[in-house]
Amino acid sequence: MSDMVKVALDAMGGDNAPKEIVKGAVEAIQTEKKIKVYLVGKEDAIRRELSAYQYPEDQVEIVHASEVIETAEPPVNAIRNKKDSSIVKGLNLVKAGECDAFVSAGSSGAVLVGGQVIVGRSKGVERPPLAPLIPTEKGASLLIDCGANVDARPSHLLQFAKMGSIYMENIMGVKNPRVAIVNIGAEEEKGNALVKETFPLLKECKDINFIGSIEARDIPAGQADVIVCEAFVGNVILKLYEGVGATLIKKVKAGMMTSLRSKIGALLVKPALKQTLKAFDLEEYGGAPLLGLRGLVVKTHGSSKAVEVKNTILQCMTFKEQDIIGKIRTSMAAAKDGE
Amino acid sequence: MSDMVKVALDAMGGDNAPKEIVKGAVEAIQTEKKIKVYLVGKEDAIRRELSAYQYPEDQVEIVHASEVIETAEPPVNAIRNKKDSSIVKGLNLVKAGECDAFVSAGSSGAVLVGGQVIVGRSKGVERPPLAPLIPTEKGASLLIDCGANVDARPSHLLQFAKMGSIYMENIMGVKNPRVAIVNIGAEEEKGNALVKETFPLLKECKDINFIGSIEARDIPAGQADVIVCEAFVGNVILKLYEGVGATLIKKVKAGMMTSLRSKIGALLVKPALKQTLKAFDLEEYGGAPLLGLRGLVVKTHGSSKAVEVKNTILQCMTFKEQDIIGKIRTSMAAAKDGE
Repeated sequence: MSDMVKVALDAMGGDNAPKEIVKGAVEAIQTEKKIKVYLVGKEDAIRRELSAYQYPEDQVEIVHASEVIETAEPPVNAIRNKKDSSIVKGLNLVKAGECDAFVSAGSSGAVLVGGQVIVGRSKGVERPPLAPLIPTEKGASLLIDCGANVDARPSHLLQFAKMGSIYMENIMGVKNPRVAIVNIGAEEEKGNALVKETFPLLKECKDINFIGSIEARDIPAGQADVIVCEAFVGNVILKLYEGVGATLIKKVKAGMMTSLRSKIGALLVKPALKQTLKAFDLEEYGGAPLLGLRGLVVKTHGSSKAVEVKNTILQCMTFKEQDIIGKIRTSMAAAKDGE
Repeated sequence: MSDMVKVALDAMGGDNAPKEIVKGAVEAIQTEKKIKVYLVGKEDAIRRELSAYQYPEDQVEIVHASEVIETAEPPVNAIRNKKDSSIVKGLNLVKAGECDAFVSAGSSGAVLVGGQVIVGRSKGVERPPLAPLIPTEKGASLLIDCGANVDARPSHLLQFAKMGSIYMENIMGVKNPRVAIVNIGAEEEKGNALVKETFPLLKECKDINFIGSIEARDIPAGQADVIVCEAFVGNVILKLYEGVGATLIKKVKAGMMTSLRSKIGALLVKPALKQTLKAFDLEEYGGAPLLGLRGLVVKTHGSSKAVEVKNTILQCMTFKEQDIIGKIRTSMAAAKDGE
C-alpha cells in the first residue's frame, strides 16, 4: 500500500455533487491501480452513488462528514466553524499525512483559506498561488496566480514564477519553460508599479527562463508557458477566457442556423468542430493546484463533471511521482537561505 | 460652414497609412455633407492618395506636417520634440478651436500624452480615460479605462463611471446605462484594495445607475453597459478579447478543414458565419475616445482600415451634436463644487 497515491475527494463539492464526483472517482480507479480514493462526505449519499458501479473496492474508502460548506459562506468562518465538513475533513487527511492530495469542486474561498490554514505553507513560501492550465493554440500555459490573494508584492510574483516553472517542467514536461509577466506593452518601461518592480527581479533570477512581458493578446497564441500575474488580473484573464469563448461559440452556432444552406453545412461540420473546440475547453485541463503548500490541494471547476474529476485524480499521481512538493520546498528554502 | 463638423485626421498614423486613412476620409465625406476633414501629414503622399478618388473638394483640406511619430518612440519626448508631426499638428488644430476632433491610428502613447498636454483636461477631470466599445451578445459595452494611466485612485474610477454613463446615454442611446465595476466575485466584500474603496463611492453616487460588481466572465454576455476598471485591467480585458477571439476563430476554421465532409459543410456555412462574426469584431465599433478633454480626441486601432476610419469620423458628428464635451464639463464641475 505504501506506493499507492491516496487522494481525498470532496464528494459534496460543486454543482454536480455527489453524482459526477463519485462517478469520476470510480473512473479514476478503474483506470489506475495505484490510486486509492477517500470519498469525504455524507456516507448515505456516497454509498447510494457507488452502488451503481462495479469497481475495485479496496481502492475506495468512505470518510463520513456530516456538514457541507456552501459557496456563498464567508470562507474563514466556514473553515473555523464547520469542523465536520467535507472540506475541513479532507484537508485534515492531507495534514495528517493519511492522504497525498485533496481535490474539491466546492467553495473556492474555503479551499484556498483551508489549504493555507489547515495544510499550511511550505517553508519559505510567502503566498500559495492557485495555478490553472489554460488552453492555447500550442497546447496549454500555466496562469499563476488566480487565487484569492489580491494586492500581491513583487517577491510573491517572483515565487510564482519559480513554482510555475517547476510545475510546467515536471508535470507538463516542458523543458526550460518560458516565463512571462502580464503587461500592457512589450517594452520594459511599461506597466503599473507592481510590474515595474517585479520585472528586474524576474530578469535577474537564474532559476527561470524569463522572456519578458506578455500582452494579454498573445496569451491565447501560447507565447509563454508560465504566465505570471497577481491574482486580480489572473482571475480576470481566466474568467474572460471562459466568457469570450462561450459567447463566441454561441454566436458561431447561431450564425449557422440563419439559413437552410448554413443549417445543412452545420450538420456536416459539427463533428469536426466539436473535436476542435474540445481542445479549447478549460474543463478538459483538470483542476488547478494551490502550489506551495505542505501537501497537494487541487480546486476543480464548480461545474466539474466526472471526466474533470477523473483527470484531476490522475494528475495527483504525477504530482506525487515527480515530488513537486519537495522540489518547491527545496527551491524556496534555497532562495531564503541565499538572502 | 459654422455647423460643419471639422475633423483633423492623422493621415500618417497606423499600419495602413496613408492609403486606408485617406480612403476612409473620402468615404466619410461622400456619406455626410456636414463633415469637413483636415488631412494632417505629408502633403505629397496625401495628394497622391486623394487623386484616386472623386469627392466633394470643399470638404477636404490638407494640413502639411513634415514629421511622423513612430509607435516605438517614448511618447513624452516625441510630443515635445516633433512639433511638426501629424499628431502634434492635429492636436493643435483642436486646441486652437479650428477643429472639433482629432482622430489617429498612430502611437497610442503619443495620442494619450498629447491629448492631455496639448488639448488639455476639462475642468474638474482628474484623469482622462480611454474608453473603447467592446462587442457583447446584446450589442456593445463601454470599457473605461483602457488608457496609459495605470495605478488609478478610487476618485478616478468614480469619474470614469460618470463620463462613461454620459457617453452611453448620449452617443449609444442607452437609457439609464447599467454601470458595473470589474471584480473577482459578485459579493460586495470581494476585490482588491482599489475595488473595495471604489465600491461605496459608486454605490452612493446619484448620477449613475450602479448595479454592483461584474465578473470578467459576464462581460461578453453584455450584463453591464459601462464597465469600470483601472487601465491595467482594462487593457488586459481589451487585448484578451482580441486574442481569444482570434485564436478561437482560427481553431474553428482549422476544425472545418479536417475532413472532406466538414470542408463541404464549411463552404455552406461560410457566408452566414462571416456575417455573425463581424458583429463580434472590435474594429467594427470604430475608435476609442479619450474622454474628459477640452476637445474630442479619438484613437483608432493601429490596424485600422478605411471602414473604421470612416465610422470614427462619422461618430465625431454625434459627439459634437450631443455636446458630450459640455455635458462632461457640467457633470465634473458640479461634482467639484459639491465637494
